[in-house]
Amino acid sequence: MSSEFGEKIKVSIFGESHGEAIGCVIDGLPSGVRLDMDKIYADMSRRAPGKDKFATPRLEKDIPHILSGTLDDVTTGAPLAMIIENTNTRSGDYGNLLTVPRPSHSDYPAYVKYNGFNDIRGGGHFSGRLTAPIVFAGAVAKQILEEKGIVIGAHIFQVGNAFDKAFDKNNVSSDLLKKLTSNNFSVIDDNAEEKMREEIESARMAQDSVGGIIECAVIGVPVGVGGNMFSTVESKLSSILFGVPAVKGVEFGEGFGFASMRGSQANDPYCVKDGKVAVKTNNNGGVLGGITTGAPIIFRVAIKPTPSISQPQQSVNLQTMEEETLVVKGRHDPCIVPRAVPVIEATAALGILDLMT
Amino acid sequence: MSSEFGEKIKVSIFGESHGEAIGCVIDGLPSGVRLDMDKIYADMSRRAPGKDKFATPRLEKDIPHILSGTLDDVTTGAPLAMIIENTNTRSGDYGNLLTVPRPSHSDYPAYVKYNGFNDIRGGGHFSGRLTAPIVFAGAVAKQILEEKGIVIGAHIFQVGNAFDKAFDKNNVSSDLLKKLTSNNFSVIDDNAEEKMREEIESARMAQDSVGGIIECAVIGVPVGVGGNMFSTVESKLSSILFGVPAVKGVEFGEGFGFASMRGSQANDPYCVKDGKVAVKTNNNGGVLGGITTGAPIIFRVAIKPTPSISQPQQSVNLQTMEEETLVVKGRHDPCIVPRAVPVIEATAALGILDLMT
Amino acid sequence: MSSEFGEKIKVSIFGESHGEAIGCVIDGLPSGVRLDMDKIYADMSRRAPGKDKFATPRLEKDIPHILSGTLDDVTTGAPLAMIIENTNTRSGDYGNLLTVPRPSHSDYPAYVKYNGFNDIRGGGHFSGRLTAPIVFAGAVAKQILEEKGIVIGAHIFQVGNAFDKAFDKNNVSSDLLKKLTSNNFSVIDDNAEEKMREEIESARMAQDSVGGIIECAVIGVPVGVGGNMFSTVESKLSSILFGVPAVKGVEFGEGFGFASMRGSQANDPYCVKDGKVAVKTNNNGGVLGGITTGAPIIFRVAIKPTPSISQPQQSVNLQTMEEETLVVKGRHDPCIVPRAVPVIEATAALGILDLMT
Amino acid sequence: MSSEFGEKIKVSIFGESHGEAIGCVIDGLPSGVRLDMDKIYADMSRRAPGKDKFATPRLEKDIPHILSGTLDDVTTGAPLAMIIENTNTRSGDYGNLLTVPRPSHSDYPAYVKYNGFNDIRGGGHFSGRLTAPIVFAGAVAKQILEEKGIVIGAHIFQVGNAFDKAFDKNNVSSDLLKKLTSNNFSVIDDNAEEKMREEIESARMAQDSVGGIIECAVIGVPVGVGGNMFSTVESKLSSILFGVPAVKGVEFGEGFGFASMRGSQANDPYCVKDGKVAVKTNNNGGVLGGITTGAPIIFRVAIKPTPSISQPQQSVNLQTMEEETLVVKGRHDPCIVPRAVPVIEATAALGILDLMT
Repeated sequence: MSSEFGEKIKVSIFGESHGEAIGCVIDGLPSGVRLDMDKIYADMSRRAPGKDKFATPRLEKDIPHILSGTLDDVTTGAPLAMIIENTNTRSGDYGNLLTVPRPSHSDYPAYVKYNGFNDIRGGGHFSGRLTAPIVFAGAVAKQILEEKGIVIGAHIFQVGNAFDKAFDKNNVSSDLLKKLTSNNFSVIDDNAEEKMREEIESARMAQDSVGGIIECAVIGVPVGVGGNMFSTVESKLSSILFGVPAVKGVEFGEGFGFASMRGSQANDPYCVKDGKVAVKTNNNGGVLGGITTGAPIIFRVAIKPTPSISQPQQSVNLQTMEEETLVVKGRHDPCIVPRAVPVIEATAALGILDLMT
Repeated sequence: MSSEFGEKIKVSIFGESHGEAIGCVIDGLPSGVRLDMDKIYADMSRRAPGKDKFATPRLEKDIPHILSGTLDDVTTGAPLAMIIENTNTRSGDYGNLLTVPRPSHSDYPAYVKYNGFNDIRGGGHFSGRLTAPIVFAGAVAKQILEEKGIVIGAHIFQVGNAFDKAFDKNNVSSDLLKKLTSNNFSVIDDNAEEKMREEIESARMAQDSVGGIIECAVIGVPVGVGGNMFSTVESKLSSILFGVPAVKGVEFGEGFGFASMRGSQANDPYCVKDGKVAVKTNNNGGVLGGITTGAPIIFRVAIKPTPSISQPQQSVNLQTMEEETLVVKGRHDPCIVPRAVPVIEATAALGILDLMT
Repeated sequence: MSSEFGEKIKVSIFGESHGEAIGCVIDGLPSGVRLDMDKIYADMSRRAPGKDKFATPRLEKDIPHILSGTLDDVTTGAPLAMIIENTNTRSGDYGNLLTVPRPSHSDYPAYVKYNGFNDIRGGGHFSGRLTAPIVFAGAVAKQILEEKGIVIGAHIFQVGNAFDKAFDKNNVSSDLLKKLTSNNFSVIDDNAEEKMREEIESARMAQDSVGGIIECAVIGVPVGVGGNMFSTVESKLSSILFGVPAVKGVEFGEGFGFASMRGSQANDPYCVKDGKVAVKTNNNGGVLGGITTGAPIIFRVAIKPTPSISQPQQSVNLQTMEEETLVVKGRHDPCIVPRAVPVIEATAALGILDLMT
Repeated sequence: MSSEFGEKIKVSIFGESHGEAIGCVIDGLPSGVRLDMDKIYADMSRRAPGKDKFATPRLEKDIPHILSGTLDDVTTGAPLAMIIENTNTRSGDYGNLLTVPRPSHSDYPAYVKYNGFNDIRGGGHFSGRLTAPIVFAGAVAKQILEEKGIVIGAHIFQVGNAFDKAFDKNNVSSDLLKKLTSNNFSVIDDNAEEKMREEIESARMAQDSVGGIIECAVIGVPVGVGGNMFSTVESKLSSILFGVPAVKGVEFGEGFGFASMRGSQANDPYCVKDGKVAVKTNNNGGVLGGITTGAPIIFRVAIKPTPSISQPQQSVNLQTMEEETLVVKGRHDPCIVPRAVPVIEATAALGILDLMT
């Protein structure tokens, strides 16, 4: 039962939503990497709430504070520990007695698993806030990967019934990825943003929430990364992606679309390009037999609608064992998909770095 | 780069398609479990080819031979090693010189990764034949789980454009699962089989192949199994599922369908059932916050069309670096989805057992 | 290359001697354990320097600050993160340019391994100060073990040429262990302390240091803990013990003494005691075939003399590659053995807890 | 509870003394390594019993049979599986009902741990026979290391009261190691053999057994291998060494001798040698701060007298719970130390290879 990811670059995440601090330890980093703190802050800011009316208004000052593992912003090779202090916790607001679990949150199974001892204030260790240290760790990983010519970027492919253009699977440019990662609302087709914002606003007005899909691309990974059987690129990435709260599906390349395809359509023929072997199409999303082909790694992640909605919902009072109507108070983020984009990029970076170390 | 799965129950898979033997070692099994060898053979037989005209005609006698770890079919607690001898390998048929990689197979990235030293005869260690020891190990795991009241079964949900009924996510019976697992062509709606066989036959006639989706259910897992962050049920299962050749997508509950849902539709309200807390719907597929809710665990897996097709395909001669048309000889399985059903069940069993040990 | 220990209870240690803070994350703890903070402080105080003239005079206020994983001192089951701020670092005292490595310290191999980027101030991540979070984590583990009736205690068996009595291997009382763990200078025979202090003082007067041996006992562990092959109790404990700076040898039971013994002397016959199977002697130190026998687990650890001595020593200037005489400034602990006692107990607790989880 | 070792090169050992076969799977080997099978047989032959009157007369034909992972004796990068068939098992000789456990064997704790289901015939999975696959795996590792200029060799340092010369810690030649590894009774000083054989013969005549110490050297490992905290060279090596049956102590360099040394004696000053930094002495056995210094890695391992002796011993009948005198039948190896030498070398090779991969 672990909040840790990775075999060579191990990331251990800790903290609770309303505890004293959240943070992470990154063990196994190479020494001598100069961290560009501005880039780290930029990614963390993309994830941070409170940027506009669509997001949760509670102001978090997610300032990462590095405790060890660097000297003058250069990694020493020792474990890098980072904390973010929780400054706005108002612990008086919550008791720690779970009486009526919120539907589709972790409340009830966590209550059973931890015999009621888990910290439920703000979701405790299950809070989406814990993705902040993931983004931090991923931003560090991204910088190490960038030195190897690897660039990662993601965009919102779908929110409710609004869609962005998909990546051209065999032709993703570094410029496009940089555009996406410099944006708080990352879309390829600028027209998609308005439609998506309408979906979100419509959900918000209905005291509801809405889900979506994020599509991510990793370019520059050489041929031959990953492995057979249980060390496939897909195994590695999915295992960390499904650690991100609200992720309920992961597919590579055509993914579920393969089900209605014929082999003759699905197969990616080889050609010679710039004197090298290349795929003519990239339906497999850059991975064959679990190993990278040199083509862009493309995957999609399904994000369920955030379960926190203001509408009355049916639940059960765990003390009385009576069914009860629950109204979750407070203002809620009607769609976490935009803020989840840098989290998905971060997990991709951590997974790829672990595979390449 | 590992062919091993699991933290507590470790399964190490070895062998090549045309090598001397394939097999596995299962480390960490409890002692005192009486193995029903007939059940193990039954699952292996469901995976084995050659049962009808739709499957590859090469006859494999997949007889598992246990070398250690049992005494009179009862586990001793020591590592259980099993081998299947390859009796029909005709090694003369193949050289080991990869000149023209088959599109969408592992041939090319494996060639780069292993510097040309990997055994390419029949796909070597990447062959689908390596799923035989996975089914064996999974069949052992299933028996241990059954003693805990846990039953696993899967069916073919989609082949090309033919569909089966989906599981009723909140109401999966042990009887249904037993029906599915006693069948070589597992579907819920018997009418689906004919449509699916037509899809497969149509692909075969066109010298083509076709993909599909397998849906799997696990019932009887108690509330509270799994963990937060990177030890979620979804992380564990997906990491092993993506180790199965041809799997390109994994989703839990509504999965990618969540993208167009509102929270009010997606959330699973709680009710009291038989004096216990239960979910009224099970859109989340039995897992919340990475932890089981007690409802059936439901997931779907996308299987790409097998890349082995008889049509001419474009590839590159790695010696001359000229583009070349490749015709893959031999008879091929036009659809591996029916045979993949017990493999998916086996991986689910191994993942759940590892989580519960 | 990891500062992490454990498979089920994972302890990740971070920090540098002169960095901002040191600390640890403990992942996998059970929920619902009430931590007695006073006992934790007591163990940390036994390790802390500055208690008498024999120890290093730099005052460390090793106040552990828990950031997550507890609520009102009760574990929640989420990762427990703890930091100790470094209040007395005077970073101006040191540059980070290693010119002349101290003999028998990690300076030179770490310089090569980390390409000179490692933090060398005060030994950086290699500093003995990093044993403070180990003691913290071990103190937590001890409390969990105590609830299972397991008690751990160690004593200084040897310093230079002064010896304590050895444990009676088959008869170690809880009272004795409690006496040892309530002491800053833990010996069984009170007369031993004076002789040992003389050895230490004599070394200190000679601007020298002295090594020693610590003997540790764990009582109350039931029969059957541990495992065969590479999961033996000895493997688990030694792997963490050799992570403690200055440890250069580990032996169980008679250890190296077995070399000159005959089987007839060495074997531990069985008898019936209180209606249970018991060993009549315990030369094997409570472990047979890697598995506990129910008898006390007894092991000894060799601690080398601390390499920091004030005498001039020969070294090499890494810039000029000329041999040079080095004088290590500052006051040094002439013997770390007394302070290492709670560290050894802590590692034993972490190892046993990991085996029993 | 695992019979597996390693993080990058994983070795999984399986089999029982009187089962059908024993063997191993080595996962993570590089591709393209040509295995010299003669060298592998040579090492296995050094471990095999039956070479002279001092060893157990049961003839084992330890012929390793490679099932996968090589093609024409060259590694493919896929898992290498090897089995040794047990040809001389006479399973009728033993029942599997443990009534009277042999003192100082694993019998009793294994009986408790496995609830009596473990295979006790010949010690089952705990048998010293399981070191044969370790030697095989180590011989493979040795060959990979040899290509990097690393040579490993060990000798019998002590048997009872007979001693060999110790390694000159700072000056171990490849020639000496090759001499040791080409011998069935490895000693530095040829005169030591006779004295040791007398000790062994004397024990045999007394229906007794005798223990010993093996000293091992690894030369050619570059500076900077290993890591801080829990990934020290000592941690890695000890964890696998304590997996070898009968090993009860491990020390590096001066080891337990450090206890009576002063820092001024113990420290290894630096000098310049052939234009490189070198140690003038090597009391630390080639490891500082857990990292290699470039000097020979030197360690010693204590082997307890084999517990199988023909003298009557006291034990307990587990059915009646009465004390009983046990006579262990059959002829026994009075000293396993000579045969353990290649096992220790093998574990050193596996540990070092895992650290360097």
